[in-house]
Amino acid sequence: MQVYEIKNTIIGKERSDIMMKAGIIGATGYAGAELARLLLGHKEVELIWAGSRSNEGTAYTDIYQNLRGFTSQECKGDDIEKLAKEADVIFTATPQGYLGGVLTEDILSKAKVIDLSADYRIKDVKVYEEWYKIEHKSPQLIKEAVYGLCELNRESIKNARLIANPGCYPTCSFLSIYPLLKANVIDPNTIIIDAKSGTTGAGRGAKVDNLFCEVNESMKAYGVATHRHTPEIEQQLGVVAGTDVTINFTPHLVPMMRGILVTAYATMTKKLTQEEVDELYMEAYKDEYFVRVLKHTVCPQTKWVEGSNFADVTAKVDERTGRVIMMGAIDNLVKGAAGQAVQNMNLMFGFAENEGLKQIPMFP
Amino acid sequence: MQVYEIKNTIIGKERSDIMMKAGIIGATGYAGAELARLLLGHKEVELIWAGSRSNEGTAYTDIYQNLRGFTSQECKGDDIEKLAKEADVIFTATPQGYLGGVLTEDILSKAKVIDLSADYRIKDVKVYEEWYKIEHKSPQLIKEAVYGLCELNRESIKNARLIANPGCYPTCSFLSIYPLLKANVIDPNTIIIDAKSGTTGAGRGAKVDNLFCEVNESMKAYGVATHRHTPEIEQQLGVVAGTDVTINFTPHLVPMMRGILVTAYATMTKKLTQEEVDELYMEAYKDEYFVRVLKHTVCPQTKWVEGSNFADVTAKVDERTGRVIMMGAIDNLVKGAAGQAVQNMNLMFGFAENEGLKQIPMFP
Amino acid sequence: MQVYEIKNTIIGKERSDIMMKAGIIGATGYAGAELARLLLGHKEVELIWAGSRSNEGTAYTDIYQNLRGFTSQECKGDDIEKLAKEADVIFTATPQGYLGGVLTEDILSKAKVIDLSADYRIKDVKVYEEWYKIEHKSPQLIKEAVYGLCELNRESIKNARLIANPGCYPTCSFLSIYPLLKANVIDPNTIIIDAKSGTTGAGRGAKVDNLFCEVNESMKAYGVATHRHTPEIEQQLGVVAGTDVTINFTPHLVPMMRGILVTAYATMTKKLTQEEVDELYMEAYKDEYFVRVLKHTVCPQTKWVEGSNFADVTAKVDERTGRVIMMGAIDNLVKGAAGQAVQNMNLMFGFAENEGLKQIPMFP
Amino acid sequence: MQVYEIKNTIIGKERSDIMMKAGIIGATGYAGAELARLLLGHKEVELIWAGSRSNEGTAYTDIYQNLRGFTSQECKGDDIEKLAKEADVIFTATPQGYLGGVLTEDILSKAKVIDLSADYRIKDVKVYEEWYKIEHKSPQLIKEAVYGLCELNRESIKNARLIANPGCYPTCSFLSIYPLLKANVIDPNTIIIDAKSGTTGAGRGAKVDNLFCEVNESMKAYGVATHRHTPEIEQQLGVVAGTDVTINFTPHLVPMMRGILVTAYATMTKKLTQEEVDELYMEAYKDEYFVRVLKHTVCPQTKWVEGSNFADVTAKVDERTGRVIMMGAIDNLVKGAAGQAVQNMNLMFGFAENEGLKQIPMFP
Repeated sequence: MQVYEIKNTIIGKERSDIMMKAGIIGATGYAGAELARLLLGHKEVELIWAGSRSNEGTAYTDIYQNLRGFTSQECKGDDIEKLAKEADVIFTATPQGYLGGVLTEDILSKAKVIDLSADYRIKDVKVYEEWYKIEHKSPQLIKEAVYGLCELNRESIKNARLIANPGCYPTCSFLSIYPLLKANVIDPNTIIIDAKSGTTGAGRGAKVDNLFCEVNESMKAYGVATHRHTPEIEQQLGVVAGTDVTINFTPHLVPMMRGILVTAYATMTKKLTQEEVDELYMEAYKDEYFVRVLKHTVCPQTKWVEGSNFADVTAKVDERTGRVIMMGAIDNLVKGAAGQAVQNMNLMFGFAENEGLKQIPMFP
Repeated sequence: MQVYEIKNTIIGKERSDIMMKAGIIGATGYAGAELARLLLGHKEVELIWAGSRSNEGTAYTDIYQNLRGFTSQECKGDDIEKLAKEADVIFTATPQGYLGGVLTEDILSKAKVIDLSADYRIKDVKVYEEWYKIEHKSPQLIKEAVYGLCELNRESIKNARLIANPGCYPTCSFLSIYPLLKANVIDPNTIIIDAKSGTTGAGRGAKVDNLFCEVNESMKAYGVATHRHTPEIEQQLGVVAGTDVTINFTPHLVPMMRGILVTAYATMTKKLTQEEVDELYMEAYKDEYFVRVLKHTVCPQTKWVEGSNFADVTAKVDERTGRVIMMGAIDNLVKGAAGQAVQNMNLMFGFAENEGLKQIPMFP
Repeated sequence: MQVYEIKNTIIGKERSDIMMKAGIIGATGYAGAELARLLLGHKEVELIWAGSRSNEGTAYTDIYQNLRGFTSQECKGDDIEKLAKEADVIFTATPQGYLGGVLTEDILSKAKVIDLSADYRIKDVKVYEEWYKIEHKSPQLIKEAVYGLCELNRESIKNARLIANPGCYPTCSFLSIYPLLKANVIDPNTIIIDAKSGTTGAGRGAKVDNLFCEVNESMKAYGVATHRHTPEIEQQLGVVAGTDVTINFTPHLVPMMRGILVTAYATMTKKLTQEEVDELYMEAYKDEYFVRVLKHTVCPQTKWVEGSNFADVTAKVDERTGRVIMMGAIDNLVKGAAGQAVQNMNLMFGFAENEGLKQIPMFP
Repeated sequence: MQVYEIKNTIIGKERSDIMMKAGIIGATGYAGAELARLLLGHKEVELIWAGSRSNEGTAYTDIYQNLRGFTSQECKGDDIEKLAKEADVIFTATPQGYLGGVLTEDILSKAKVIDLSADYRIKDVKVYEEWYKIEHKSPQLIKEAVYGLCELNRESIKNARLIANPGCYPTCSFLSIYPLLKANVIDPNTIIIDAKSGTTGAGRGAKVDNLFCEVNESMKAYGVATHRHTPEIEQQLGVVAGTDVTINFTPHLVPMMRGILVTAYATMTKKLTQEEVDELYMEAYKDEYFVRVLKHTVCPQTKWVEGSNFADVTAKVDERTGRVIMMGAIDNLVKGAAGQAVQNMNLMFGFAENEGLKQIPMFP
């Protein structure tokens, strides 16, 4: 196809009528671009707005050449009020503070909003402001926002106007720990989460720290004892535990592009056999399409979920120490960001929950 | 979902009636596994046979954990006669010589066969035997086999019983060079192809040479002046040129998993402007869904086609030397193997040519 | 230079008289080859034996082409008795059980032995046999063996005949935790070690699991709650704590070649400020050439020690949880194997402790 | 050691009297940092100036943590006149145009200058200005500058005041092609150089294009038919051929950090056997320490020279096409930049040519 001249053709879509219009603000970051990839392959959606203030007027596929042929959009700006008039759903994959600063009741009355930033994730605005060092400009909307972890909040998501799409680390941490915490068999305050992330998690900003030659063939912890996802994880674990939870969370940067691996430790409050632990995981996720429980003899591997919305989880009992080691893997750009956002959209608009999310993980 | 106990459920398929049964012999190599991934996502096909002699009886998803939940098949052997009775189409992703040694008229009368090995690619059996150092056991079938480069042989593929699915390097080399050779504006005997491949091209065999620590952070040429894809490329270029063609072909191993990049050089037989060259590429591929012509100012990048069946091509005129530099990129496991095999299947069975091949390239 | 014909020339050495003869059994594994690299650059040593049973008679530099020009040795076998007659020091970089099965008093009376395997690391032979599933054939020699962690056992190493060279994970874990354990400010039984290793740690065996395409772009835990380095770490921490210590140790495989990163957690037994913790690290390592204490605001990064014998360590106090996060990085092939072996040799033979180990870490 | 407080100690040096003072302008780029690494390990040199205008006042080891303990320098600016008064030799690893704009006869009368930029490489100032799009500010000094390819210009280097240190691609290209061109057995105007480089070659600038997630798992050509190293290569090949030479040169970016691989093609002007070609390489480099001629059955691999100043070269005759394929590998930061600069310094100051350059390549 003569792809560099197409203006009006969109390939890859085969349907008569398009039902929904979607826009992305922050479409040129990695999460935004993954969202575009998923939406361009979604049967029920038309992508009408790829927002990127700094690239306004540039063909979106000149920035993301992988999408060449799938859209002829030029990048638009970040005028969310204008977008709200044109779109049914708005995704914001923007820096912290952006949506908090512009979102209004008026916008929400026109379009549903799914926010991939942290602005509406933390229910206690003081905690948000303390960890994010940003004044929240629309605290009155926090209460309405539904934390979009579909496996936990499916029903409230269906009726939400505003979704706080979970962070990548919190999603993987929560899904790894949830079955045992819910069953009340681990001590919440002994939880230690040692998490490892691919470099897409560091964003597409032009920083020396993220250069190939700085990241490759190396590994490091970062944000030790201070990472912003800590209160988000604590809040959600607290919801399940029914009490305040304080944890250690240590993220690491891994020389790979996609994937989060969580290794979490907790002391068991009663002596459980491996079989009982297995059973709790199986039971907790028996109706969940996107969570795959692995045998406890098999450790999750990030590549096994690459490009898909799956979370692979398992847990191993260590009788010697009385602790259980809980493990989970997701693709941080999919289940950890754009895929979960689409999953939320599907729930909100009554589509099949896995519509547009049937990608089979790619290996190798 | 309780994925490690499912026996009869296949997720990811939403259709009432399954039209076609497909089997793979050699399903545990990388090309075979990619074929499985594509077929498991193909609306019109049921995968009934994942053949791997050395893994017979093992759950296929215990080997390819990425596919967990998408199939409950256990690996079967390589009894192609039995398979021919059960399947409508057989894919062989087997070592050179296997299919040549077992294929019969009887098998072909029961099932269509798409061979990902080189056994039926080379029309001159002496050339095959010389480069592959294997005696061909069924030379009488070579003539019938159609070389499955869809962009070249679309019509004959539709009616074929036996497809010789092209090699990865030949596919990328051919698509990069074709427009100028067809237009008769380059001297065929000046063609030099310098090709670079990801490591999936080296297969999944347990060899020291392919260990992470041997491949990573290094680059090398291999098979210099002796690589087996040379006569295949020469044969196909010869078809277009209408004369014998002798070329230099040098493959290289690159520390990445997927992707082939071709940089080809040839002397122009007449002085062409860049615009004329652009035009020849646009014209040659104007009706091709899977070939994306890039602006000559943009060099193809393997990641832009990753996970997809696309070939990105372009060419640059160098007035100083009178040569043109032709470039192309494919995913070696998709357009260079499994994807092209599915494209052939689609043509042979009357499905849309891009059915099951609508994956949008993944980036990063 | 005409390197492929040299037989008798050794380049890279500039000295009049060679003082010591060294041999390696197991010279074609990664640790053995790193040992060769270090010994070939060591002023006081001549490498007279590169042992590899499966490669006997092959030029050593045909296997490790990087060493081309630095030795003209052909690989010899594993006849340790013969080697003991010719060499002053023998390094064994062999599978578990080899040295335990062949070592005798007679050998030790002729040559000093530095064992990079685990055969003499564990003082309690029952623990060894339980974790390694190997019967120990020379338990009477275990007591004599000195655990070759130079920073801990410098004086006993100087007079040893048999060194149990520490494992890579134990070395990095120990050096990360030592200052606080020695100061008795952490509870030993709350120690959790989450360790990450490059793929050279998995060896040079031809296994599918270690192929580039299996390792790259992925991350996983392995040996969860069962890894053989666990009792070794517990034993050495126990020596410092003066009591039995039981820990969690979880190793992970990282898509990089060299480097171990340890992130260790423990509950503080008294409230320490960050400054007090800093001070304990500084004090503990003030005379150690090979340990670099980093500011607590800087997390160790494996690449900063690549190719060198350094260990970079630091610790961060988390007041919220009352835990301290201890971090360390080494090159697993150097300080975690071959470099530490040379450091031991230097101590044993009275050379400067850093002789042959002055490599400045390479970046990038 | 208490490395973060050292102010006056320099580890790693063991010598009574320091003979020479060296300064680097542009010490925080990758070539500059590699130069620092080499000079800090050089017996005869003291590094007195790590110049980086944008980091003035910052501890150099806060930027390059790998060097921690080896220097206590704070970054200084780019006042070359001041530096010339203090140093015996000045290395400039600066952007094109910098040195051309500031260098004077006065500076050269005080200190020798080794320039790693291209400012004095091209003898014809018009060619320089055309390819680099920079006006040359000190064309009168071009003539004096010696092109610092030691294997070609050893004698003139010894007496030079100003060295134009060769580019990475030209060094590897030249050493790969030189023996056959010198022997007059290939047609210079048929030379095609297909070169592949690691990403350190793209520098340490904070550009999106060089982010880990943009470079990793991908490969591309760049600067096709327009790369600035083209005239440099043509000039040096022309010196050997004794005539003007016009070539094709295509660089590629490879997802690895260090290393350049050159695959060059040329038509033989007379029928040569493989043995004759081998002999020409052996003869050409028989006295060269830093060039290792490989058997023609072994293709150079970039990792085999990593971290060292070696160039590995070989060539393969292709009788079918009458062409010869010449191959070479270097570490672009060492033989392609900093190492060759030190080699030049050694020649200029009468040190052993390999002083400070005895690093054995690291593998893996």
